[in-house]
Amino acid sequence: MLRAYRGQPVDHMPVWFMRQAGRSLSEYRAVRMHSNLFEISRSPQLAAEVTIAPVRRLGVDAAILFSDITVPLAAIGIDLEIKPGIGPVIAQPIREPADLRRLRPFEPEQDAPYVTEAVRLLVRELEVPLIGFAGGPFTLASYLIEGGPSRTHTRTRALMYGNPRLWRSLLDALAGIALASLRAQALAGASALQLFESWAGILDPQTYRTYVLPSTVPIFRGLADLDVPRVYFGVGTGELLADMGSAGADVVGVDWRVPLDQARMRLGRKVATQGNLDPAACLAPWEVVRERVTDVLRRAGASAHVFNLGHGVLPETDPEVLRRIVDLVHQHDVITPEGAAVDL
Amino acid sequence: MLRAYRGQPVDHMPVWFMRQAGRSLSEYRAVRMHSNLFEISRSPQLAAEVTIAPVRRLGVDAAILFSDITVPLAAIGIDLEIKPGIGPVIAQPIREPADLRRLRPFEPEQDAPYVTEAVRLLVRELEVPLIGFAGGPFTLASYLIEGGPSRTHTRTRALMYGNPRLWRSLLDALAGIALASLRAQALAGASALQLFESWAGILDPQTYRTYVLPSTVPIFRGLADLDVPRVYFGVGTGELLADMGSAGADVVGVDWRVPLDQARMRLGRKVATQGNLDPAACLAPWEVVRERVTDVLRRAGASAHVFNLGHGVLPETDPEVLRRIVDLVHQHDVITPEGAAVDL
Repeated sequence: MLRAYRGQPVDHMPVWFMRQAGRSLSEYRAVRMHSNLFEISRSPQLAAEVTIAPVRRLGVDAAILFSDITVPLAAIGIDLEIKPGIGPVIAQPIREPADLRRLRPFEPEQDAPYVTEAVRLLVRELEVPLIGFAGGPFTLASYLIEGGPSRTHTRTRALMYGNPRLWRSLLDALAGIALASLRAQALAGASALQLFESWAGILDPQTYRTYVLPSTVPIFRGLADLDVPRVYFGVGTGELLADMGSAGADVVGVDWRVPLDQARMRLGRKVATQGNLDPAACLAPWEVVRERVTDVLRRAGASAHVFNLGHGVLPETDPEVLRRIVDLVHQHDVITPEGAAVDL
Repeated sequence: MLRAYRGQPVDHMPVWFMRQAGRSLSEYRAVRMHSNLFEISRSPQLAAEVTIAPVRRLGVDAAILFSDITVPLAAIGIDLEIKPGIGPVIAQPIREPADLRRLRPFEPEQDAPYVTEAVRLLVRELEVPLIGFAGGPFTLASYLIEGGPSRTHTRTRALMYGNPRLWRSLLDALAGIALASLRAQALAGASALQLFESWAGILDPQTYRTYVLPSTVPIFRGLADLDVPRVYFGVGTGELLADMGSAGADVVGVDWRVPLDQARMRLGRKVATQGNLDPAACLAPWEVVRERVTDVLRRAGASAHVFNLGHGVLPETDPEVLRRIVDLVHQHDVITPEGAAVDL
């Protein structure tokens, strides 16, 4: 998988699934009966157990640390809670310049030692690469400003347009937290890093370039010395791909709405891709799943691609379908018709 | 506005706003204190009053009938309620073949005489064109299957993939309801018709072509004899524009994520466009609003375009900002630099 992330030739196309360690797995649901999401994230043993389960069960080529993008925020004292069926809820949203004081710098080894401990534990146990991750500044800002998940991100964008100086300070602070978190995971042994800018797709390209990209570039630049592949992902970002491809990541995740070959044209050839099967397609009969997987493989062609879903595994998904997808992807011949190596 | 919808030369660019009659207006909030959304929709007097208010207050070039896309469903006996802050909630969702029996054909003059009565009343009073509308089959199917609004439309897409025959019957039934509703509004005097396929943007192009387009084409074809411009709109549909442009509408609405000039390239030159200012931009200081409006006007160039937001007016919007946008759009010179007529 690391070779594919770097655009180097591979024997078979690698595959993993966003939220592969989530509610679709009985192993996870068993742990969740006794512990909530933050409790699992703060216990290196439980986090490791939940992280490893899908590797054994599904045969994927990578593990992704079980955690949440809001863990560093909680670790520096933001009063937040993950409400089942809702998502992260923040008791006192951030809306005034004075609120910025609550976003002190994140010191991973002091503030959240359980994260790096889980990474070290996993790196010893796993035979596949471990992916570390953090939340992107726009996505975290939206949770902090709205006080919880939002479909329209109205308050967030009103603050962004209405007080660009406060906005920039907020995004820079969150970018600093993301960078500190990602660096710590890599230094503890994570082999690749993914920035989840999940909700950036609400923005048009010009707004993204003006209000988000300037705070994002330093994150990827700040990881450059570590020689660890950097992945950048958001949902519904078809119109943003050209700009996201210029942010400094080695790999850009593509959701399911954009056909992969079109996504590559927008990205240019300088980055690898990851994705882009519709998570809802996994709920279809196997013939439909197979056809959709094959379509992604066909559109990937000889380009550097890591198979994944276009967003997280839906809780309703049968893990057996995911296992069969892994087999199907692994059986696929990634060599170009002319026998040439992978083409980045 | 009708000339622009038809791609004919115009003196100035026309403008109206989706949800212009909604919660941003004090006139609407006053009516809502005593009546809920269905009660307003079922009272021709109240619906007309609420429909007219933004024309007077904002100076827009069109009125859109105050109603809801679920009104025809409620009128044929589907037990649904609009819950404040949530949206339409359906007591008994549709998930089995037997449930289809509950979707009997819609007879507008018998089942919902208040709709056509409101249209007749408005056509007598208004000095600008009245736009009638209906919900698209995918969007209505999602409400019916999920039982309410959904971010992932999981059950909807699981049914679509898992039981394509039931899906097709359901969508065809809903398309029949939309067509009957739109025809009745046009025959009562509406000058243009908009199909709100609000949530189609959750689908990739291939899925849209396979599962939604075949049930949608007959709606636009079924309106062709009326000589009334037909508008087709959905949110987040950047990747679907080429296909939506082929559905048979005269105008395609473009949300704010796609720059308008790129949207036109995907659509081809056979349709006019409508949109595409970010509704959240209306919450910005006036200099930002002006810059964004000017950008849309610049990208529209000499093409046939009706100015609008990329989705509905946000409740937090100051009506004074909308009024100033109307003035700004009207002052804009739509003649091409060479003095040529509007270019479709």
